[in-house]
Amino acid sequence: MNTKNTGATNILVIHGPNLNLLGMREPEIYGHESLQDINRELSRLANKVHAGVVFFQSNAESLLVDRIQQAMTDGTDFIIINPAAYTHTSVAMRDALAAVRIPFIEVHLSNIFSRETFRHHSYFSDMAVGVISGLGSKGYELALEYALMIRR
Amino acid sequence: MNTKNTGATNILVIHGPNLNLLGMREPEIYGHESLQDINRELSRLANKVHAGVVFFQSNAESLLVDRIQQAMTDGTDFIIINPAAYTHTSVAMRDALAAVRIPFIEVHLSNIFSRETFRHHSYFSDMAVGVISGLGSKGYELALEYALMIRR
Amino acid sequence: MNTKNTGATNILVIHGPNLNLLGMREPEIYGHESLQDINRELSRLANKVHAGVVFFQSNAESLLVDRIQQAMTDGTDFIIINPAAYTHTSVAMRDALAAVRIPFIEVHLSNIFSRETFRHHSYFSDMAVGVISGLGSKGYELALEYALMIRR
Amino acid sequence: MNTKNTGATNILVIHGPNLNLLGMREPEIYGHESLQDINRELSRLANKVHAGVVFFQSNAESLLVDRIQQAMTDGTDFIIINPAAYTHTSVAMRDALAAVRIPFIEVHLSNIFSRETFRHHSYFSDMAVGVISGLGSKGYELALEYALMIRR
Amino acid sequence: MNTKNTGATNILVIHGPNLNLLGMREPEIYGHESLQDINRELSRLANKVHAGVVFFQSNAESLLVDRIQQAMTDGTDFIIINPAAYTHTSVAMRDALAAVRIPFIEVHLSNIFSRETFRHHSYFSDMAVGVISGLGSKGYELALEYALMIRR
Amino acid sequence: MNTKNTGATNILVIHGPNLNLLGMREPEIYGHESLQDINRELSRLANKVHAGVVFFQSNAESLLVDRIQQAMTDGTDFIIINPAAYTHTSVAMRDALAAVRIPFIEVHLSNIFSRETFRHHSYFSDMAVGVISGLGSKGYELALEYALMIRR
Amino acid sequence: MNTKNTGATNILVIHGPNLNLLGMREPEIYGHESLQDINRELSRLANKVHAGVVFFQSNAESLLVDRIQQAMTDGTDFIIINPAAYTHTSVAMRDALAAVRIPFIEVHLSNIFSRETFRHHSYFSDMAVGVISGLGSKGYELALEYALMIRR
Amino acid sequence: MNTKNTGATNILVIHGPNLNLLGMREPEIYGHESLQDINRELSRLANKVHAGVVFFQSNAESLLVDRIQQAMTDGTDFIIINPAAYTHTSVAMRDALAAVRIPFIEVHLSNIFSRETFRHHSYFSDMAVGVISGLGSKGYELALEYALMIRR
Amino acid sequence: MNTKNTGATNILVIHGPNLNLLGMREPEIYGHESLQDINRELSRLANKVHAGVVFFQSNAESLLVDRIQQAMTDGTDFIIINPAAYTHTSVAMRDALAAVRIPFIEVHLSNIFSRETFRHHSYFSDMAVGVISGLGSKGYELALEYALMIRR
Amino acid sequence: MNTKNTGATNILVIHGPNLNLLGMREPEIYGHESLQDINRELSRLANKVHAGVVFFQSNAESLLVDRIQQAMTDGTDFIIINPAAYTHTSVAMRDALAAVRIPFIEVHLSNIFSRETFRHHSYFSDMAVGVISGLGSKGYELALEYALMIRR
Amino acid sequence: MNTKNTGATNILVIHGPNLNLLGMREPEIYGHESLQDINRELSRLANKVHAGVVFFQSNAESLLVDRIQQAMTDGTDFIIINPAAYTHTSVAMRDALAAVRIPFIEVHLSNIFSRETFRHHSYFSDMAVGVISGLGSKGYELALEYALMIRR
Amino acid sequence: MNTKNTGATNILVIHGPNLNLLGMREPEIYGHESLQDINRELSRLANKVHAGVVFFQSNAESLLVDRIQQAMTDGTDFIIINPAAYTHTSVAMRDALAAVRIPFIEVHLSNIFSRETFRHHSYFSDMAVGVISGLGSKGYELALEYALMIRR
Repeated sequence: MNTKNTGATNILVIHGPNLNLLGMREPEIYGHESLQDINRELSRLANKVHAGVVFFQSNAESLLVDRIQQAMTDGTDFIIINPAAYTHTSVAMRDALAAVRIPFIEVHLSNIFSRETFRHHSYFSDMAVGVISGLGSKGYELALEYALMIRR
Repeated sequence: MNTKNTGATNILVIHGPNLNLLGMREPEIYGHESLQDINRELSRLANKVHAGVVFFQSNAESLLVDRIQQAMTDGTDFIIINPAAYTHTSVAMRDALAAVRIPFIEVHLSNIFSRETFRHHSYFSDMAVGVISGLGSKGYELALEYALMIRR
Repeated sequence: MNTKNTGATNILVIHGPNLNLLGMREPEIYGHESLQDINRELSRLANKVHAGVVFFQSNAESLLVDRIQQAMTDGTDFIIINPAAYTHTSVAMRDALAAVRIPFIEVHLSNIFSRETFRHHSYFSDMAVGVISGLGSKGYELALEYALMIRR
Repeated sequence: MNTKNTGATNILVIHGPNLNLLGMREPEIYGHESLQDINRELSRLANKVHAGVVFFQSNAESLLVDRIQQAMTDGTDFIIINPAAYTHTSVAMRDALAAVRIPFIEVHLSNIFSRETFRHHSYFSDMAVGVISGLGSKGYELALEYALMIRR
Repeated sequence: MNTKNTGATNILVIHGPNLNLLGMREPEIYGHESLQDINRELSRLANKVHAGVVFFQSNAESLLVDRIQQAMTDGTDFIIINPAAYTHTSVAMRDALAAVRIPFIEVHLSNIFSRETFRHHSYFSDMAVGVISGLGSKGYELALEYALMIRR
Repeated sequence: MNTKNTGATNILVIHGPNLNLLGMREPEIYGHESLQDINRELSRLANKVHAGVVFFQSNAESLLVDRIQQAMTDGTDFIIINPAAYTHTSVAMRDALAAVRIPFIEVHLSNIFSRETFRHHSYFSDMAVGVISGLGSKGYELALEYALMIRR
Repeated sequence: MNTKNTGATNILVIHGPNLNLLGMREPEIYGHESLQDINRELSRLANKVHAGVVFFQSNAESLLVDRIQQAMTDGTDFIIINPAAYTHTSVAMRDALAAVRIPFIEVHLSNIFSRETFRHHSYFSDMAVGVISGLGSKGYELALEYALMIRR
Repeated sequence: MNTKNTGATNILVIHGPNLNLLGMREPEIYGHESLQDINRELSRLANKVHAGVVFFQSNAESLLVDRIQQAMTDGTDFIIINPAAYTHTSVAMRDALAAVRIPFIEVHLSNIFSRETFRHHSYFSDMAVGVISGLGSKGYELALEYALMIRR
Repeated sequence: MNTKNTGATNILVIHGPNLNLLGMREPEIYGHESLQDINRELSRLANKVHAGVVFFQSNAESLLVDRIQQAMTDGTDFIIINPAAYTHTSVAMRDALAAVRIPFIEVHLSNIFSRETFRHHSYFSDMAVGVISGLGSKGYELALEYALMIRR
Repeated sequence: MNTKNTGATNILVIHGPNLNLLGMREPEIYGHESLQDINRELSRLANKVHAGVVFFQSNAESLLVDRIQQAMTDGTDFIIINPAAYTHTSVAMRDALAAVRIPFIEVHLSNIFSRETFRHHSYFSDMAVGVISGLGSKGYELALEYALMIRR
Repeated sequence: MNTKNTGATNILVIHGPNLNLLGMREPEIYGHESLQDINRELSRLANKVHAGVVFFQSNAESLLVDRIQQAMTDGTDFIIINPAAYTHTSVAMRDALAAVRIPFIEVHLSNIFSRETFRHHSYFSDMAVGVISGLGSKGYELALEYALMIRR
Repeated sequence: MNTKNTGATNILVIHGPNLNLLGMREPEIYGHESLQDINRELSRLANKVHAGVVFFQSNAESLLVDRIQQAMTDGTDFIIINPAAYTHTSVAMRDALAAVRIPFIEVHLSNIFSRETFRHHSYFSDMAVGVISGLGSKGYELALEYALMIRR
C-alpha cells in the first residue's frame, strides 16, 4: 500500500472506565479482542505511516482529566477518546478537552442510540470533530485513519 | 496494499435531500468535492477489493423509500445512508429499512450534535449498525471500509 | 346472508408507504396475504351490498395528498385510510383530509400502542370518525363494514 | 348467510363505569340504544355462530377486577372491554388482564383522541390485541366479529 | 334575618374518602367538628330557606359514582362535592357528573395549592361552576349559600 | 338576622387590572353589576356587623404593591384580593403580600380552571388562606363572610 | 434461636389488588407459594416473639381504605403494605395512611424499577418508613423482622 | 401612484401543499379568491414597478425542495413562501432555503397561533427575514411590497 | 396613486416598552429612524386615504392597559400593537384587548423567532387578526395598509 | 487604607419592588438595616475612592425601565441592580439593560436558589457581568467593590 | 437458632462516599453506630451460617468500580451495595455491575423517596435484584439475610 | 486601612477540576493570573486581619470529598468553594458539605448563566450561604471578605 499520513502525527487514544475488561469475559459475545489487541492494531496502523500513538485507560475520572491536561504540553495533536460511562456524566473531562483545544473524535464500541435513554446524551459530542458509534473496535481504527488522513 | 474484502460485496450508498448541491457552491467552505467526486472515490475503494457499490440520491422521500425497498431484491447486502434532513423527520424511510432487513450505517457530513437541537434526534440511529457523524466525505469512506471489512 | 348497505356507497381505501410490501416477505410472520389479497376481499364485501370501493397505495406523501384531494370531486363518500408511517409525520395529508371533509376511519394493521413511543401520536385520529388498530387485515374489513353500515 | 365462527367460543364483554346510563338520557344525542340493546345485539351475533357471550357492567373498579380474575377459570377465551373512565386510571384492571392472559380488544364508543388530553392515554392499549375507538355501539360488534373470526 | 332562597331547592352534598374521620382525632388541629356537625349546620341553613339538603359520604369511588348517577332522577338541582383524594384520580366521578348535567361546586377543606404538587390538579374544577378551597368547613356553608342564592 | 362578626374588623378589598370595566359593557353577558355595585354590597354586608371595608382597584401592578404595603400600617387585618391578570404574572404582588403577613383570600369571578392553561397557575394561591373561583361577584361576598366569620 | 421482639406487637399486613391470585397459576414462574403460604410464614415468625399479626387482602380500594382507617382504633402499631397496582394510583389510601399516623413499610414482590415507567412512581414511598422492592415473598418477612426489631 | 421599487427584482413565490384548493370550495368561508387570483394580483403589483415574479405550487415536498434549489441559479433575489403543512414538518425545505441563501418571508393565510399547538412551531421562522401570519391573501401582497421595498 | 381605504378609519398604534429609544443610538445598526419618524410615515399613509391614526407609547404596562381600555369608547376600530417586552409577560394587556373587542395586528420589529426561546411565545398572537414579525418599521406600514384595506 | 478605584466612577444602584420595606419590620429577622442604611454605606465606600454612586428604588417596573434608560445619557458607567421580584418576570427591564449597554451586576439579598423553584430563573443573569446572591446587604458592597475595582 | 444458609456464601458489601462518617458525629441523630459497627454485625450474622462477608468503603468512584470489577474473579457470589451519592450519578459503577454479572441488592440508610427530587432516580435499581430503602443499618442486615437465604 | 475581621478565622478555599490550568494558557483571554496568584492574594487579605486561609485543588472528586470531610475536625469555620465542573454533577461533594455543616460560599469565575444550559443547575447553591458568579478571581476575594466580615 502506498498509504500516506497527511494528518496528525502524535495521537493520544483514551479509553474510559470498564474498558479494561474487554476480552476478559464472554468472548462469544464481545469477541476475544482485548484492549491490548485493539491498541496493538492501532499502533501497527500508525507505524505504517510513521505516526505515533499512545494509549491511556483509567477507571478514574480524575486521571482521565489529568491525562487530557497533559496532552496540552506533550505534543499531542489529535485525541481519540471513548469516554465510556463518563460520556454521560463527566463535565470535568469535557472541560479538560475544551481547555487543551486539541481536536478529538468520540468513539463508542456499541451503538449508544439503541441502548438506555440516558446513553443518548453525550457531554462530548457537540465539541468533537465527529462521532463514531456502534462499529466495535473497528471504530477506533476508522477514527485513527481519519486522524492520520491516510489515503489508501 | 494487500487489502482484502471480507465483508459485504454489494453495497448501496444513499444520499438524502440537498446533497446534490455538494461542491456546487462556497467551495472555500464545503470544499470543491461534489457528490460525484465522493461517489467516484467510493467506487475506486470498492473496486480495489472487487466489491460493487451503487449510488442513489434524491430529494424525494418516496423515491428514497422506493430505492430502499428495491434493495430487498437486488442483492444489496449493506447500505450506507446519509438521510440528511430526513434523518429527523422520515418514519417512512425508517420503516423501509426495517422491512428490508439489510444492515446499514448512518453517515452525516457535519456533526449533527453541534447544530440545532432538532438535529440531535434521528429516526435511524437506534436501528443502524452504527453512526459516523462530523467527518465530512471521509465519513462515507470509513463506513464503506467497515462494510467491506477491509483490513489494511 | 341478508346484508344490507345503509351507509356509504363510494368508498376510497388508501394505503400509505411500505404497505406495498405486504405478503412479499416473511409470510410465516406477516401471513401470505398481500395488499392485493386485502383489496380483493374488500371488493368482494362491497360488491355484496352493491357498493363501490377503489384503492390507492403510494409511498409518496404528495400522491396521497393528491388522491385525497381528488376524492372531493369523484363522488367518494367515505375514506378508509392506513397512513402507515405518515400517521406520525404528515400534516399535509391531515390538511387534505380536513379540506375534503369526507368522513374517514384510520386503520392500523399492528397495535401502534405497543410499539415505539413516537407511534403513539397520530396526526389523523382526532379528526377521524374512529380508529381501528392492531386487528391486522381484518381491521380494514371491519372499517368497511362500518362505512357500509352493513347489518348482518 | 354462511357465517362461520373460526375463533373464540366463550366471550366476555365488560362495560366500565357510567355505561349503565347509555340510552337513559338524551336519546337525540346518544341514540335510544341502551346497554341492554347493545348486549342483545351481541348475543344475537354470537348465537348465529353458536358462540357464547356473557356481559358484565360495573361502576366499581374492584368488581371489574374480580370479574376479570374469574375469567381465568370460567372458560372465557376472549374479552371485549370498554374500560370507560378506568381506561385512564386503573392499573389494577390492567394487572388483572395481564394475570389472566386472555386476549382482549379495547373498545371505546367515542373517539377518545378528539376529547380531553388525559383521555389520549390508556393503561390497556399496549397490552390489547387491538383497539376500536369512535365507532359507537358498532365498535362492540366489530370487536365481536374479530373475536369470532367470523367470515361473511 | 330576612334570608330568601332564590336558587336551588334540592341540594346533594357529597363527601369523598377519609372525610368520615373528621373530628375523630386531633381536635386541637382539625377542630372538634365532625362530618355530622358540618352536615347538621348545612341542614340548619337550608331549612331556614325551606330548601332540602341530603348528604352522602363514602370511601368507595363506585358508590360515589352511583350516588351522583342517582341524582339524575331524584330531583337534585345542585351538588356540593368535596371529592377529597378522588379529586386527583377519579375520571369515573368526573364522567358521572358530566352525565347528570347538574351544576356543582367543588369544595376542599384545606388549601390544596399549598400541599403536594399532585394535589394541584383536579379532574373536576374545569367542569365545576366554581371552586372553594382552604376555608375549612365554612367552605361548605359558603357553597351552600351560593347554591341557595341566599341574600342576607 | 342575628349575624355576629367574630372575625376581622378592617378589611381591604383589592381589585386587579381590567376589573374597572365590570358592568360597562355587554350587560347581557356579564350582568349590569359594576365594580361600584359589588363594593356597595360588600360595604352593606360589613356595616351590618360593624366592620370596616375599604376598596382599591388599579391597573398598575406597582400601585397594587403600594396599596398592599400600606396595609401593613393602616390596621388592615384581612385582605380579599382578585389579582385578575396579575394572578399569573406578578411575583411583586406576591412578595408584598408575604411581607405584610396579613391573611388573605384570593377571589376570581370566572372559573380560571376552565379557561386557558396559563390561567391554571396562580402566584398567590399557595400563600392564601383559601381560594374562591368561578362564583361571580358572589365570590367576594362569600370571602367577606369568611373574613368576618359571620354566623347567620 | 434467641430472637427478641423489641419493636411493634400488633402488626397489620395489607395486600393490594390481584395479590389473591398468587400461587394460583404458573407456579414454575411465580413459585407455588400462595398468599396463604406467605401469611402463614409471617404468623409463624410473629408468634416466635409473641407478637400478633393480622392480614387483609382486597381488590377494592375502598375496603383497603376502610381497613387502614380501622387500624387507628384496633391497636395496630405497625403496618406492612403491598399496595400493588394502587401504589401508582391511590391517593385515597395514601390519605388514609396519613390520617392513622401508624408507621408502615411499603413492600413490592417484583422490582418495580425494572418494569414500566409508570410503576416507578409511588404515592406511598415518601411517607413510608422504608421500602423493600424486588425480594419476592421474602420482602414481607424482612419487613416484619424490621417491624418486630427482632435481633437474631 | 409614484411607487418605486428599490428592492428585489426577481421574486419567487412558493405555495405549499393543499394551497391548490384555494377558492375551489366553500367560497362563503374562504372567499372566491383562487390561487390564480392571488398570483395574478401579485403579478400586477410587481409589474407596476417593473419587477418579475414567478410562482410555484406543489403538494410534493421534493418538488418544493427542487424549486428552491433552482432559485440559486435562476436569478431569484427574494422568496416569498407559504410552506403550509410543511411549515411544521419539513427540514428538507429548511435546508434547501439555507443552502440557496436567498432572503425570504414566510407567509401564512390563517393565524397559525390560534390553531392546533403543533402549528405553533415552524422550521422556517428563525431563518426568515420575517413572518406574516393571519392576514389572508393580503399577507402575500404585503410580503411582496416588502420584498420590492415599494414606497407609496 | 389611486389608493382607496375600504377598511378601518380610526386606527390606534400602540408601542410598548423601550420603543421610545428607537433611533437614539447605534443608527448604523437600527437605522436613523426614530419612533417619531415611524409615526410620521404612518400618519402620512393614513392621511392619503382620509383615515385617522393616533399613537401611544409607554414603558408602563398599566398605561398601556388604560390606553387600550380607552379605545373602547373613543371610536377606535383597529389597533396595531407592538407589545415589545410585554409580548411575553403581560396577561393584563391581553385581557384589556379581549375586553375592548377591537381587531388588532401584532407587530414586531425584529424576528422574534430567531431570538431567545422565551420570545417565541406571545400572549397576544392567538387573539390577533395576524402577526407581522421581523420586517422592521416596514412592518407597521404593512399592518396599517391591511387595517386600511388599501388597494394600490 | 490605600484603596484605589481603578474601575467605574459613576455607579447607579437600582433596588426593585418591596425593597423599600427593608428594616421596617421584623428586625430580629432581617436586621435593623434599612435601605437608607445600605445606601449610606455604599456612598461612604464610593466616596473613599472619589467615585459617585446614585440610588433608585421603585415598585414600578416602568419607572425602573425609565431609570435604566436614563443611565444611557447621564454618565453612568456601571449598574448594580437587585431586580427583586422583577428578576423572574420583567423582560422589559432586561430589554432596557440590553439597550443601554452598561455593564451590571445582579444582586440578591437572599439565596434565591434555596427558595421557590420559580425564583431559580432570572431574566437578567445571562446578560450580567456576574451575580451575587445570598450575602445580604454585604452583597451590594461586594458588587460595588467589584465595580470600583478597589484593591485593598 | 437453627438458621441455615441456602444462598450465597461469599458476599461483598460496598459502601459509597461519605459513609465513612457514620457514627462520627451527631450520635443523637444518626445513632452511635459506626460503619465498623455495621460491618461487625454483618460479619457476625454471616459467620453464624458459615458464610463469608467482606467490606469495602471508598469516596472514590474509580476505586468502587475497581472493587466491583475485582469481584468478577475473587469468588464473590452476591453484592450488597449502598452507592450513596453515586446512586444518582455513576454510570461507571452501573456498568461495572453489569459487567461482573453478580446479583446485587441496593441499600439506602435513609428513605430516598422523602428527600430531594434528584435522589428519586437511581442508576442501579433497574438492574438490582431488589432495593431496601429507609430502614437504617437494619437494611444491610435484611439484605444480607436475603443473600444468605437464611431461614429462621 | 483599619480593616477588622469580625467573621471566620480559619478558612478553607477549595478549587475544583481543571482550575490548576489557570494562567497557564491564553493569558490574553484568561489573564496572567495563575491559581497560585489567586491563592497568594487571598492569603495576603486574610493575613491583614490575622485570619488563616488554606487552599486545596484537585481534579479528583474523591479527594475533594476527603478534604471537605477533613474540615470537620481541623478547625475550619468557613469554606469558599469553586466546584467547577463538579458543580453540575457531584452529589458526593454536596453530601460531604452537608455532613460537615460548615457554612460555605460557592464561587464561579465565569458567569455560568451565560453558558451551556447544563451549567445553570448547581448541586451546591441551595445549601450555600450564597453564590458569586462571573466576577473572575475577584469573586474569591469578595467571598473571603464576606467570610471574614471585614469592614473597610
